[in-house]
Amino acid sequence: MSRWEPNTRERLLDAALELFGERGYDSVTVAEIAERAGLTKRTFFRHFTDKREVLFAGQEVLSRVFAGAIAAAPASATPAEAVGSALAAAAAEFGPERQERGRRVQAVVAGHSDLRERGLLKRATLTAAMAGALRERGVRDPAAALAAEIGGLAFWTAFARWTATGNEREFAALAAEALEELLAATATLD
Amino acid sequence: MSRWEPNTRERLLDAALELFGERGYDSVTVAEIAERAGLTKRTFFRHFTDKREVLFAGQEVLSRVFAGAIAAAPASATPAEAVGSALAAAAAEFGPERQERGRRVQAVVAGHSDLRERGLLKRATLTAAMAGALRERGVRDPAAALAAEIGGLAFWTAFARWTATGNEREFAALAAEALEELLAATATLD
Repeated sequence: MSRWEPNTRERLLDAALELFGERGYDSVTVAEIAERAGLTKRTFFRHFTDKREVLFAGQEVLSRVFAGAIAAAPASATPAEAVGSALAAAAAEFGPERQERGRRVQAVVAGHSDLRERGLLKRATLTAAMAGALRERGVRDPAAALAAEIGGLAFWTAFARWTATGNEREFAALAAEALEELLAATATLD
Repeated sequence: MSRWEPNTRERLLDAALELFGERGYDSVTVAEIAERAGLTKRTFFRHFTDKREVLFAGQEVLSRVFAGAIAAAPASATPAEAVGSALAAAAAEFGPERQERGRRVQAVVAGHSDLRERGLLKRATLTAAMAGALRERGVRDPAAALAAEIGGLAFWTAFARWTATGNEREFAALAAEALEELLAATATLD
């Protein structure tokens, strides 16, 4: 296959998920993942630093989508509205085929403490991307940090509900709802 | 020295900070840290899984202090008040000698990306401890998750201000102020 083929990261992720499903996460090597994807080990390492990273392939894209949408929100948008537009933009990435993939990734991550740790780190990275984009818009701290944390909580809540067994609602609606719930909860803390 | 001597973790941290200051974080080994503290490598590994962990020695204690204070807050306390009592309880741990140690830990962590990553993970662990203790009190999500995030932001903001060069204010006052600022900011998001 051509080394210029697009979606190399997703092909590697899908190959990894296949192999993890067949033989378990621990016993699969990077070389095997690359081979299953019809790529070389060297190509794998051009995209990911280690086997764990392939499971978080989508999150770098997501950080850019979040930050881009916050930057592009109208100047009149409040911090909450800017975060809402980030979640709406992310929703475009979450079609039906991503849902099944998301479920499989979550199942692997949930079973390994070092993967759960890496996941926490990725969450912090996403939140930092949103906070940075809000500050670029002139939102001051602590509002920028707070709005970003709320955006992160809304995103992960929506993602968990979207990938839950039996869910038939779309990501966009779940994300908007989770954000509304969190903004409403700010009034119940004191 | 007796293996029953208290504060083994702090002795190891102080020995590590001395050595990191003399020769840099990268070139110091676990065996050297243990030796400087008058302990064995085996004792080091009874307390920490690796060299990085010694820098975060205080954070496990902190998780327990936070969770304990939230559990002990009066039944009538709001989520914000319970988080406030956690910050006040943590303040008891932050006397003048911890301030200098905190500065030195921060300087080492800031210079190494893998330590910054570990630090993010530790933050997530602290926040999760607060959220869990709030849920135990009957605070429902998303308020529990939100109050814990705000508590975490208040804590880290206060810690940064407390260890900043020239600061003369006490941790307790800085933490209460940071929490107030964050609670006030919840009203500015929309």
